[in-house]
Amino acid sequence: MKKQYSIRLRVWIDESTGTFLGMGRVILLEKIKETGSITNAAKTMKMSYRQAWQLVNDINERAKMPLVEIKLGGSGGGGALLTPYGEKAIKSFYKMEEKIKKYAELLMIKIDL
Amino acid sequence: MKKQYSIRLRVWIDESTGTFLGMGRVILLEKIKETGSITNAAKTMKMSYRQAWQLVNDINERAKMPLVEIKLGGSGGGGALLTPYGEKAIKSFYKMEEKIKKYAELLMIKIDL
Repeated sequence: MKKQYSIRLRVWIDESTGTFLGMGRVILLEKIKETGSITNAAKTMKMSYRQAWQLVNDINERAKMPLVEIKLGGSGGGGALLTPYGEKAIKSFYKMEEKIKKYAELLMIKIDL
Repeated sequence: MKKQYSIRLRVWIDESTGTFLGMGRVILLEKIKETGSITNAAKTMKMSYRQAWQLVNDINERAKMPLVEIKLGGSGGGGALLTPYGEKAIKSFYKMEEKIKKYAELLMIKIDL
């Protein structure tokens, strides 16, 4: 039987004490950018506000500078936005993941299964 | 603050209808080799016999030839062993994973986070 194989992979960038960025975290960051708040981002991801807030806090703490800027209070009830560093980190993550996937696909062509 | 980053990744080889090999499946295959049976392999992995058997069946069905040979019945209650193709597939998986990891580590050195 002729079988068709393909490669699938997941990538995480770890800081010394744990995960810094993975696809789930990157999507949360993108949703914050889109919706302008952690509350709304959490809703689109069917995540509790608490869970999303903890992830954002964890990302910020593991970075050399914050990826998300949280605005407390105000008439609109606060909000959150990506910092320029946050934008850059997302781009770097995707770029790296893309390169690794391309390399892995090249290897798959040569693999003898 | 100086942060130390590293990369972590997981790799799966998919056949057109689903996962063929991933680290969990490779470990199951190695345990079958070590213990000589699916029952014992399942025990070491805290998996039910049924679960392990289904995985082995799935691996065999998604391969061009079986990775595990199952011996039914007999005085010892049957057993299982890796075929030469099974041995080869495990080696190919590790080799590929290793190459991807090395490539990813090289990328990580250059990434500006």
